[in-house]
Amino acid sequence: MDFSLSNEQNDLLNSLNNTIHDYDDNYWLHCDNTSKYPIEFVNTIAEGGWLGIAMPTEFGGSNLGVTEAALMMMLISEKGGMTAASSIHMNIFGPSSIVKFGTKEQKERWLPNIISGKTKMCFAVTEPDTGLDTTRLKTKAERNENYYLINGRKIWTSTAQITNKIMIIARTSKRENGNPTNGLSLFYTDFNRDSIEARIINKMGRAAVDTNELFIDDLKAPIEDIIGEEGKGFSYLIHSLNPERILVAAEAYGIAKNALERAVNYANERSVFDRLIGKNQSIQHPLAEAWAKLESVKLLILKAANLYDNNKSCGVEANAAKFLAAEYGMEICKQAIATHGGMGYAKEYHVERLFREMMIPYLAPVSQQLVLSYIAEKALGLPKSY
Amino acid sequence: MDFSLSNEQNDLLNSLNNTIHDYDDNYWLHCDNTSKYPIEFVNTIAEGGWLGIAMPTEFGGSNLGVTEAALMMMLISEKGGMTAASSIHMNIFGPSSIVKFGTKEQKERWLPNIISGKTKMCFAVTEPDTGLDTTRLKTKAERNENYYLINGRKIWTSTAQITNKIMIIARTSKRENGNPTNGLSLFYTDFNRDSIEARIINKMGRAAVDTNELFIDDLKAPIEDIIGEEGKGFSYLIHSLNPERILVAAEAYGIAKNALERAVNYANERSVFDRLIGKNQSIQHPLAEAWAKLESVKLLILKAANLYDNNKSCGVEANAAKFLAAEYGMEICKQAIATHGGMGYAKEYHVERLFREMMIPYLAPVSQQLVLSYIAEKALGLPKSY
Amino acid sequence: MDFSLSNEQNDLLNSLNNTIHDYDDNYWLHCDNTSKYPIEFVNTIAEGGWLGIAMPTEFGGSNLGVTEAALMMMLISEKGGMTAASSIHMNIFGPSSIVKFGTKEQKERWLPNIISGKTKMCFAVTEPDTGLDTTRLKTKAERNENYYLINGRKIWTSTAQITNKIMIIARTSKRENGNPTNGLSLFYTDFNRDSIEARIINKMGRAAVDTNELFIDDLKAPIEDIIGEEGKGFSYLIHSLNPERILVAAEAYGIAKNALERAVNYANERSVFDRLIGKNQSIQHPLAEAWAKLESVKLLILKAANLYDNNKSCGVEANAAKFLAAEYGMEICKQAIATHGGMGYAKEYHVERLFREMMIPYLAPVSQQLVLSYIAEKALGLPKSY
Amino acid sequence: MDFSLSNEQNDLLNSLNNTIHDYDDNYWLHCDNTSKYPIEFVNTIAEGGWLGIAMPTEFGGSNLGVTEAALMMMLISEKGGMTAASSIHMNIFGPSSIVKFGTKEQKERWLPNIISGKTKMCFAVTEPDTGLDTTRLKTKAERNENYYLINGRKIWTSTAQITNKIMIIARTSKRENGNPTNGLSLFYTDFNRDSIEARIINKMGRAAVDTNELFIDDLKAPIEDIIGEEGKGFSYLIHSLNPERILVAAEAYGIAKNALERAVNYANERSVFDRLIGKNQSIQHPLAEAWAKLESVKLLILKAANLYDNNKSCGVEANAAKFLAAEYGMEICKQAIATHGGMGYAKEYHVERLFREMMIPYLAPVSQQLVLSYIAEKALGLPKSY
Repeated sequence: MDFSLSNEQNDLLNSLNNTIHDYDDNYWLHCDNTSKYPIEFVNTIAEGGWLGIAMPTEFGGSNLGVTEAALMMMLISEKGGMTAASSIHMNIFGPSSIVKFGTKEQKERWLPNIISGKTKMCFAVTEPDTGLDTTRLKTKAERNENYYLINGRKIWTSTAQITNKIMIIARTSKRENGNPTNGLSLFYTDFNRDSIEARIINKMGRAAVDTNELFIDDLKAPIEDIIGEEGKGFSYLIHSLNPERILVAAEAYGIAKNALERAVNYANERSVFDRLIGKNQSIQHPLAEAWAKLESVKLLILKAANLYDNNKSCGVEANAAKFLAAEYGMEICKQAIATHGGMGYAKEYHVERLFREMMIPYLAPVSQQLVLSYIAEKALGLPKSY
Repeated sequence: MDFSLSNEQNDLLNSLNNTIHDYDDNYWLHCDNTSKYPIEFVNTIAEGGWLGIAMPTEFGGSNLGVTEAALMMMLISEKGGMTAASSIHMNIFGPSSIVKFGTKEQKERWLPNIISGKTKMCFAVTEPDTGLDTTRLKTKAERNENYYLINGRKIWTSTAQITNKIMIIARTSKRENGNPTNGLSLFYTDFNRDSIEARIINKMGRAAVDTNELFIDDLKAPIEDIIGEEGKGFSYLIHSLNPERILVAAEAYGIAKNALERAVNYANERSVFDRLIGKNQSIQHPLAEAWAKLESVKLLILKAANLYDNNKSCGVEANAAKFLAAEYGMEICKQAIATHGGMGYAKEYHVERLFREMMIPYLAPVSQQLVLSYIAEKALGLPKSY
Repeated sequence: MDFSLSNEQNDLLNSLNNTIHDYDDNYWLHCDNTSKYPIEFVNTIAEGGWLGIAMPTEFGGSNLGVTEAALMMMLISEKGGMTAASSIHMNIFGPSSIVKFGTKEQKERWLPNIISGKTKMCFAVTEPDTGLDTTRLKTKAERNENYYLINGRKIWTSTAQITNKIMIIARTSKRENGNPTNGLSLFYTDFNRDSIEARIINKMGRAAVDTNELFIDDLKAPIEDIIGEEGKGFSYLIHSLNPERILVAAEAYGIAKNALERAVNYANERSVFDRLIGKNQSIQHPLAEAWAKLESVKLLILKAANLYDNNKSCGVEANAAKFLAAEYGMEICKQAIATHGGMGYAKEYHVERLFREMMIPYLAPVSQQLVLSYIAEKALGLPKSY
Repeated sequence: MDFSLSNEQNDLLNSLNNTIHDYDDNYWLHCDNTSKYPIEFVNTIAEGGWLGIAMPTEFGGSNLGVTEAALMMMLISEKGGMTAASSIHMNIFGPSSIVKFGTKEQKERWLPNIISGKTKMCFAVTEPDTGLDTTRLKTKAERNENYYLINGRKIWTSTAQITNKIMIIARTSKRENGNPTNGLSLFYTDFNRDSIEARIINKMGRAAVDTNELFIDDLKAPIEDIIGEEGKGFSYLIHSLNPERILVAAEAYGIAKNALERAVNYANERSVFDRLIGKNQSIQHPLAEAWAKLESVKLLILKAANLYDNNKSCGVEANAAKFLAAEYGMEICKQAIATHGGMGYAKEYHVERLFREMMIPYLAPVSQQLVLSYIAEKALGLPKSY
């Protein structure tokens, strides 16, 4: 066993740290207060080549693993919270379906622009009435001569306001009871604003990175924009579920680390009743517990990533990592506010923003309840509960 | 023992319910989204005579107790959250120092306008550097011929943007080590915007009811505006601490009830995987636990109020009620969001707003930690820990 | 509303306190260590007339309510834990089926001996394979000329080693799917050791009050020993469920109070690193929180009892009281041990015994999970989950 | 990074599993019920050479690290709980002071017998009045011509009833305020029952492995039995603190794993209301959460061990591992009982025994509170709180 980062991994993090150094607290506060997409930050990341961290080298990527991507997202969210992480999150793991199932032509056509940041893509899976039951998706893609005609509604699509490409899943044939996952197809095509209306959902946090409901009306996707085989889209999607959960766990970890550091600093500076508040066990013990929990969940996140990168089964570990990181993250962000007392409620102390952002990995991409059901079935052999 | 409301109390709540019936979810959402003070609601409340619920009848009040005020605030926050509650909170318990320690002339001069809603008052106690250690307040009031000249800074003053009166505590003589609470005096005077700058603090929630930092520069308070004796202000303030905690507990209860009802309704309507989500124990059990906790803490809130109204010691009960109501309230609001899944993150489902508002009774008017220290000392006889 | 005890209730508690004063910690420790039934204590209670607290005066009882019975059991378990409570628990609420549904002749025949303590009764409901699904009971009572012939197995029957009467439920006709609760009958008859073998179940705690598995082989119950109508036994049993839960909640409260007092005393006496450990917030804050929770749950227990005594529906309150009392009780007993450090593990400090005993109200007479399901359905209108 | 066990480590565990295979649940239940030291098990372990796992090869050991010792103790407690672990625990890490600071002659004289199991040793550090403040130890060792004369009292000494050697720390010179840790000396000498009375402390669990208060009266320790330099004993002791915490964490992990497996099995076998109880989310979700937490804490335990074995600082990791393993372990053992319902309270289902045993790593060798203070200071740079 070896629990330490390699020299390459440490160098990577140092380099990233230098790259993003100038984006300070006020930058992120301003983005949040004004709902401004952090385009400067995204450009800096793209220019540094970071978007291709897990993409093949032949298209401009670094061909590293989910482990390195997770380390990268930990650091980014530790510095800029979910606003920073979400602004680039989709570029990191979203194109993996293209990498795995796209044709050579498609890869050449699409990947370089994604990696360079020229393309901003969004991801359209969830629908308003289907919740987490993906097989019930109603959006249809009807095959015409040279294109598919796509109609339907999607929800929870991030960055649709600033995007020029959409990855979308739609039904190309009817749902069969025996095989409900068949008949869904995956497309990567232009985000044509004549055919797609993106309505912003006002939400609790992360105002800088928009989230939308999409109303899709006769969107034409050329046949060369379908990924892999028609009807196999769901199986392609499944491949990216574990990396997504690992990255979301990494982001939750980073946000919590960010909040913990602020709490510790405040506890070391603020005096009440002539003593540092950090001297109070009611202040310091929860922070110590937070530290312990973050240490343990970081190992679990990296173990899941390591398994994935070694082509080993990692589903229960990835889910457990997302579950614990989100649970602990919620506790820790709440505690960071409590540590600040009333000041924790003021936006300028940043912890309330982190708390609002932490709710995202708590709620998405899958609920904590479904994660537990998954672990109960897969790790413990207990019966399906629903 | 009798745990049921009297007929009069039930009538009161029915009447209040009718009065505020028209202020629906969208009203409160709009106020929050646009940082708009809910003046229509406040006027309706004032016109109904509700502001004087605990004020003497001779000045237009109803002369009821903290029990009825608590029941009122429970219902108001159950309907409109902390935005509704905070828009009138100060008028309910704030003037009690005037009632108890003011002269007949002052009462006649001040109370009718407070009760009618013509006066909006704010409360200026806390200072940026003193935290919860009130005896270290630095704002000074220097006695001149006919007035006191007040200089200093205050923080966490609510409604200062729309107020015309200020209740303020300031040092009129130096802090003595033996008697640190002596030498503080309480004033109720015009909120003169030439001498007071109120800077809004951007905060996590309750944007509709402003919170401010005050910069007070040569504010002249006429000598007839001092309440009671010079130097005794701290002792006057102490009298309203328990009612304040009881009302804050009542508001936390109301917010949590509000969130719980929404969660239950959603769980009874939303289907995923062909079944109501409320059929899942992971959804319904936390809501059942929430119900049990709210029932128990409601009794404790009302017991504390009942003790107060019967002139019995109620400090530990009032503090315990605020502590539990805030703890449970945080859990329940979080659970209400989790019940809604991703929808819980959207503002239009209201639960995220309640969660952000619940943080107020969690953090104020006193931290949960200090409450526990108080109970440890007063109820259990344990030594002071700080 | 009135949250205070009446003078009569206070007198009752003072009198009880005097009655049981001599049964000190060592008595209960000795009973536990040696598995000795606390017969001296039971005799003292019986001589004081306490067993008839809720029984009709005409048979020697005091005709008081569940409220007074709950107050009594709170005090008894506060002094002697579950060992004390369980040694008399069944006599307090067990005979209520006789009082409500027995004939005049039966009451005259049975109640005076129960109230005087001459009769020790046990309660045989649960069976090894039925768990909490009472309608699936398999024990049969076949009607012969003058008697019923009872055969079957029961589990979790307390005090069967020292008992001379058994209240038992058995099938007198087959389970119908439409009406599964029909066909069960209730008997109160001699505990005939020729027909009943009682095997002690070795258990985690409360060794002094035996718990048994019963093997019943041709037990003859004379027809005059059936309570009420044949086939209606389940409905009679239902009547005593709420009082039982209220009393169990009261006992959990008492045990927790007992543990809390020990923890507070220890924290006020023990010094480490030259300071009282009670000065540490990590020691004193959990105890303060325990106090707050016990105050609130005590009110809920008494409210449930008050509703019952006023013939109002009290199911959700009784269940919520049992749930919270058991949850808090577990926390508090654990904390009491933690407060004692290593000493908490030594039997002579008594808190480990209380912890082991607290598990009983946590697990019985109904699981915490089923309580939550009940509240979800009855108080919140959510669907049945199982 | 590499999170997988090596082939050698896997082989080790397989071999150990074979070695202890015959010691089944009933063996451990019997030991607990009858307070019988598991001498057969200890002999089997000794014969297999396992006691020397971390001892030098020249004296018969295997010279492996704390990592392997932790893996070994995880498996042993997973099979036999704390009864199994404690029966050999002291032989595993206790002699490390001898290995590190003993003379060649001492090692030759002592280690082979320890490794072969011929010597049973006990450890006498804690005293009744000093709690966790080791520098205040009062036991004295006065130097005479050829021996030290030791007098004093010790508490929490395990296995003193069956031991023939004692490792003991005592004052050889007075406590200086500036240097309170100086002047303590460490001895390893014969457990002479003429001079030492060992009184068993009746305790909550692990009755099979005795715990004692020692009354030491003129115990003569030959001068060749002092370890290292006179007065340096405390610093020697410190060296074994981290391995001890790691092993205790490993044991807590093993007990929790043991309890979790039983709960899962029961949930997969027991039906109530015509369905497996494991189908209930209220049953299965807590077990899934338990699994996730155990996975994460196992990684932290092994990371701490790995750091230690690589001569890196591991204090915060070792403490965090013991903290989390004990917290989670308590939760999980409680949940395992709750899963079993009433059966969980019966000794024959084993989970109550594990719960009682889990309290040991929760309370020892250091309280959870002191662990948090340590982490707050060392990992977060917060001030000392006591």
